[in-house]
Amino acid sequence: MSAARPKVVIVGAGFAGLAAAKALHRVPVQVTVVDQHDYHTFTPFLYQVATALLEADAAAFPVRGELRRLGNVSFRLATVTGVDLDAKAVDTDRRRLPYDYLVLAAGGVNAYFGHSEIAGRSLGLNDLPEALQLRNAILARLEAAAWASDPAERARLLSFAVVGGGPTGTEFAGALAELITGTLTRDFPDLDRSEVSITLAEASRHPLSVFPQPLPAAADRALRDKGVRVRSEAMVAEVDQTGLRLKDGTTVPAATVVWAAGVRASHLADGLGLRLGSHERIAVTPTLQVDGHPEVFAVGDFAEIRTPDAGQPLPMLAQVAIQSGRQAAGNIGALLRGETPQPFVYKDLGTMATVGRGFAVADMGPVKLTGQAGFLAWLVVHIARIAGMRNRSLVLTNWVSGYLFRNRPVRLIVGPRETDQAQLQGQR
Amino acid sequence: MSAARPKVVIVGAGFAGLAAAKALHRVPVQVTVVDQHDYHTFTPFLYQVATALLEADAAAFPVRGELRRLGNVSFRLATVTGVDLDAKAVDTDRRRLPYDYLVLAAGGVNAYFGHSEIAGRSLGLNDLPEALQLRNAILARLEAAAWASDPAERARLLSFAVVGGGPTGTEFAGALAELITGTLTRDFPDLDRSEVSITLAEASRHPLSVFPQPLPAAADRALRDKGVRVRSEAMVAEVDQTGLRLKDGTTVPAATVVWAAGVRASHLADGLGLRLGSHERIAVTPTLQVDGHPEVFAVGDFAEIRTPDAGQPLPMLAQVAIQSGRQAAGNIGALLRGETPQPFVYKDLGTMATVGRGFAVADMGPVKLTGQAGFLAWLVVHIARIAGMRNRSLVLTNWVSGYLFRNRPVRLIVGPRETDQAQLQGQR
Repeated sequence: MSAARPKVVIVGAGFAGLAAAKALHRVPVQVTVVDQHDYHTFTPFLYQVATALLEADAAAFPVRGELRRLGNVSFRLATVTGVDLDAKAVDTDRRRLPYDYLVLAAGGVNAYFGHSEIAGRSLGLNDLPEALQLRNAILARLEAAAWASDPAERARLLSFAVVGGGPTGTEFAGALAELITGTLTRDFPDLDRSEVSITLAEASRHPLSVFPQPLPAAADRALRDKGVRVRSEAMVAEVDQTGLRLKDGTTVPAATVVWAAGVRASHLADGLGLRLGSHERIAVTPTLQVDGHPEVFAVGDFAEIRTPDAGQPLPMLAQVAIQSGRQAAGNIGALLRGETPQPFVYKDLGTMATVGRGFAVADMGPVKLTGQAGFLAWLVVHIARIAGMRNRSLVLTNWVSGYLFRNRPVRLIVGPRETDQAQLQGQR
Repeated sequence: MSAARPKVVIVGAGFAGLAAAKALHRVPVQVTVVDQHDYHTFTPFLYQVATALLEADAAAFPVRGELRRLGNVSFRLATVTGVDLDAKAVDTDRRRLPYDYLVLAAGGVNAYFGHSEIAGRSLGLNDLPEALQLRNAILARLEAAAWASDPAERARLLSFAVVGGGPTGTEFAGALAELITGTLTRDFPDLDRSEVSITLAEASRHPLSVFPQPLPAAADRALRDKGVRVRSEAMVAEVDQTGLRLKDGTTVPAATVVWAAGVRASHLADGLGLRLGSHERIAVTPTLQVDGHPEVFAVGDFAEIRTPDAGQPLPMLAQVAIQSGRQAAGNIGALLRGETPQPFVYKDLGTMATVGRGFAVADMGPVKLTGQAGFLAWLVVHIARIAGMRNRSLVLTNWVSGYLFRNRPVRLIVGPRETDQAQLQGQR
């Protein structure tokens, strides 16, 4: 590695950032990946972590393990606090990182559409700490209900509301219904399934409304079959301690509110002085560069990407992230060779979403699957996509345990001890 | 289950409490197990959790899953705050639980021998949250060192001190040395193994001094071979931000201090008004009952058990806990039948401890093993003792990955999100 090599800093080790780092492997640059976590999250499995089917380590991989085979890529754990576009440097809570080329792949966070108070009244499902917190909260509610003798108090504790019927909310609601029906009613002998209410509030007519018909209607039926109350065309006006208040004036009681109503770009986007598009994402050129700074690329959920052939910006999906990350790396290579960066062309490989065990919808161009065929497709695609033999074996073991024997082995309310942490962190 | 059955409350779902609950399965009583966690911890694996070899769910099992096959046993998640011995009721942070018979199996916590300030300056390894916190701290130190360019600052961050050369401290120190040598030097390309110092401070001449010779001397050599600095006959006078100060005036610099110097009975013991023995444990009669309250039993780490044949109280070991828990259950059965409770006779099945991969000492009466033979014995015994096919498969997968390929798959700095937790907890 020559010190004279141009420096590339990649902000974020999600799908987009990792894809960019790997694609820069053969480009004569020195790459630094910065992330606030030391792991890469396989986000399609987060709802399985939140419903006690998978442990954290089955949905996450040490970033350094992924990167160490790439000789020209190093990793730094830090929170990025800003970017000095003129000085060409990334500011972190550790130290400044100068760059010649920058790839912004900082991902997304929960969007509250101006109602920031919802963050304190709901649980998210957008990253691994949130998924673990949600798992702990669900199990703690059941434990609290075991102590409650008053039926009204039990009903309150056992009421769950999921806001947003996109893939995240739908997959979670289906898996939660099964966690309770299949496993927790055995764990809690006094628990009657009819005491538990799970409501999915969706603004459209059906959940999974981004899928073509008949998939949304089929997902809707599958959710109802599992005992999920689907509230269609339900717009949430307010979230408070008692649950949801909808815009039509009705209320949905819920001790636990899961917010899956939308994602926006990470808050880093707000302070960069760059033009923002929908979902507070950084607006990019067709070549994924930002206006006025050809050395800066934005990709994945952090970028609003408009392709020449599509009027709508691309959705916030893993495949868009992976492909755009790769394209940014390719365009950095082009710039280094004095060539013209190429516009990004998205190749839609299809989308799928599960509704619990044995049911998924899959939209793969002309092929549209529902039910068990969709579920089989989901299992195969996701086992293939997850990295590493160990993780595959781990995930398969848990799926056999969970889907065949309806056992959720990870139903533990656990996290690191927090006391005295502050003082130890002072030593860092 | 008749309501007229006598009520047994078991405080604690560790080895002793679970053994008691299982043994009460065929006794005509109604049993309630109370614990502050919803899981049972397989404590021999905690050092493997702390060194990123096993995930939390491989060292812990949902208690409800263990108990649900037992028709007369129910579980309640709560923190026990006291016992009203006269009113025969257990007080918790939830509600009062009346009992006819009580089994106190509340286990142990770190002992600081009057130096309570050490709790805030060190990390423990006595339960699962502590093990996860320690894992996160170790990995965070390495990440911090990756940012440090000053050699003195790097050396400080990469210095670890373990206080106490009993099985916990010895096993952890050996596994930590291997985590760094085998895995983290590959993850951190700039890291030189010689920059990392791991010191084990032990008050006796050798670590594992409770084992018969030549096992302690062999363990000592094995630790040194792995690069652990063993400080023999080292008495710790003080722990501060810079590390350890020993009673002989020398210092051991350490950014991370792991406290494995001793265990005492859970603090519940302090407020019961019962006679305490060594390690603040509840003194019990040979039949495991407490003075003046024949309906109250204390077992496991929570009890100071003296057997008629031994002068010394029994050590705080899993086997003592399991056997004494079973005996308490048997004696409750005896009391119900109007028979005389039997004195506890401890059957020593041997003890073992690992020093990293490929080395363990095992003391099984006439058979004393060290090295690879000891390690093989340790693997076989612990795979046999851990409950459930899934956990066995999980542990074996990780051991193959860890011991054969020197990969520590769980090297993630992760825990549930803590923000907004307070408010949600208010809803419980």
